[in-house]
Amino acid sequence: MPKRARCPQEWDARVLRDFPPAKRYLIGVSGGRDSVALLHWLRSLGYGKLVICHLDHGLRGRAGNADARFVERLAAQLVLPFVGKHEEVKKRAATEKCSIETAARQARYSFFAQVAKRRRCFTIFLGHHADDLAETFLFNLLRGSGSAGQGSIRACSQRTVDGVELTIARPLLGVWRKEIDDYVAAHQLRFREDASNLSLEPTRNRIRHRIIPMIEKELGRSVRQSLWRAAEISAEEHTTLEELLPKTVDEARALPVALQRRAIRRWLQKHAVPDISFDLIESVRLLLDPKNGVAKVNLPGNRHARRRAGKLFIE
Amino acid sequence: MPKRARCPQEWDARVLRDFPPAKRYLIGVSGGRDSVALLHWLRSLGYGKLVICHLDHGLRGRAGNADARFVERLAAQLVLPFVGKHEEVKKRAATEKCSIETAARQARYSFFAQVAKRRRCFTIFLGHHADDLAETFLFNLLRGSGSAGQGSIRACSQRTVDGVELTIARPLLGVWRKEIDDYVAAHQLRFREDASNLSLEPTRNRIRHRIIPMIEKELGRSVRQSLWRAAEISAEEHTTLEELLPKTVDEARALPVALQRRAIRRWLQKHAVPDISFDLIESVRLLLDPKNGVAKVNLPGNRHARRRAGKLFIE
Repeated sequence: MPKRARCPQEWDARVLRDFPPAKRYLIGVSGGRDSVALLHWLRSLGYGKLVICHLDHGLRGRAGNADARFVERLAAQLVLPFVGKHEEVKKRAATEKCSIETAARQARYSFFAQVAKRRRCFTIFLGHHADDLAETFLFNLLRGSGSAGQGSIRACSQRTVDGVELTIARPLLGVWRKEIDDYVAAHQLRFREDASNLSLEPTRNRIRHRIIPMIEKELGRSVRQSLWRAAEISAEEHTTLEELLPKTVDEARALPVALQRRAIRRWLQKHAVPDISFDLIESVRLLLDPKNGVAKVNLPGNRHARRRAGKLFIE
Repeated sequence: MPKRARCPQEWDARVLRDFPPAKRYLIGVSGGRDSVALLHWLRSLGYGKLVICHLDHGLRGRAGNADARFVERLAAQLVLPFVGKHEEVKKRAATEKCSIETAARQARYSFFAQVAKRRRCFTIFLGHHADDLAETFLFNLLRGSGSAGQGSIRACSQRTVDGVELTIARPLLGVWRKEIDDYVAAHQLRFREDASNLSLEPTRNRIRHRIIPMIEKELGRSVRQSLWRAAEISAEEHTTLEELLPKTVDEARALPVALQRRAIRRWLQKHAVPDISFDLIESVRLLLDPKNGVAKVNLPGNRHARRRAGKLFIE
């Protein structure tokens, strides 16, 4: 677990062991302090072939445009290639009928995948840090969306976007925001303050700026480390449990409850069932065992899950 | 997941399916509202052979004595057997060098085991409810003690105490405090107010009375259901993962990180290593793989974990 204050030589760079500095990588740079610090740190570790990627989400008007020019200039100073794109994320949110935050994430990954394909470079470094991990864990927990580890940010993960398989590495996931602040100050790095605070989800902002500080004040100690640790443990346990899942949902019947729940969630996801709540999973779980006397469960969007001849169907 | 307000007929009594009403059971009754409501509800469901167990922890002086007499009278009114005991829990805490809360829990279970043996009745009902589950989950999470599901309160669990195998059932674990309040009011049940609020752990009280209400105010919605759900899921996942653990710690080497961590935690617990932190587990985990070049790790109390000829030892 990361301590609260270390010099950059002590930062946990374990994830970087799998990414030799001589190779070429993409890096997402918003212009905020985290990504600017990540870029500087990677270069100090000998990463010389970085492709700087910046998406202007079209959410901050002129300021967003200024962020893009700031990052472009930074790339020019470092003699690194720059790829920028502007997208009106609000339009995407309207078309896809999703939240601005979801649309922004989709737009970013779609952009990264595009650059990856064009540049034939399929690993991207992102600037998420230890506080992001702790905050996201609490966010998911309070939202109550299934298993605690499910939405955890991972130090290294794979993601298929628009048919492109991206490897996402987050070298700063064991480094605290405070340490990044100190790093930025020590190296007198310039960054765009507003881009640092671009969180599109009000609940996430409340967790960061109000809820975690309130809990820490009430308990008289830091809880970020506890949250970080729980997130890290849950993420690994999530992976382990996912690997235990059977190929078909029908095979889940003989498994422990925890795996039944996960198998059903995956099955519903595969059939594009929206709004998969815990209660819905528990209802569908009753279908697994004929003894429960349940043969049909209503799903959102006027669809149904059924058991017929011992097998589950969605219609 | 339990809804916020239901009539008692709708309370989730699934755990009771395994405990037929005609049999004899112990029930822990502090005199507070939860256990008084549980006793009343069980009797309304036809549980007629209950043995009422009450431990006076010696922490509230005369008031504790009055609680005991209150419960004894209640038992007499219901024509049920009463077993009471007084123990000075502070003394136990001093002898065992543990917190008052831990000593109180030990004293209670030791008392329950004693009664179970004497009465040849090995199942006890306890009055923990849905808010207890949610609060305990957040408590463990903020304390940062390992896997989130580890310390979860279970609706049904086994526990060996002083050589006696107890089955502990908590029929109210899916019922909210508010619903119990309504039940107590509707049936005009008398209870001891102070015994209801006997929480010996200040952090737990802060979570209940300050932190959860603050979070709910900040987010403008209830988070107890999210916490309850996360606790329930984590508890099941905890059980599933524990069942996957190998017999010896040395076999853990080939397993996923999540299981290595659990195998090491269990191995250290078996060797009575105190204060098993996440960092300690991560250090010991390095011993598993000879490639890490680590052959010795310091443990608390001047002991050491070592790898010798490919096997782990504690000395």
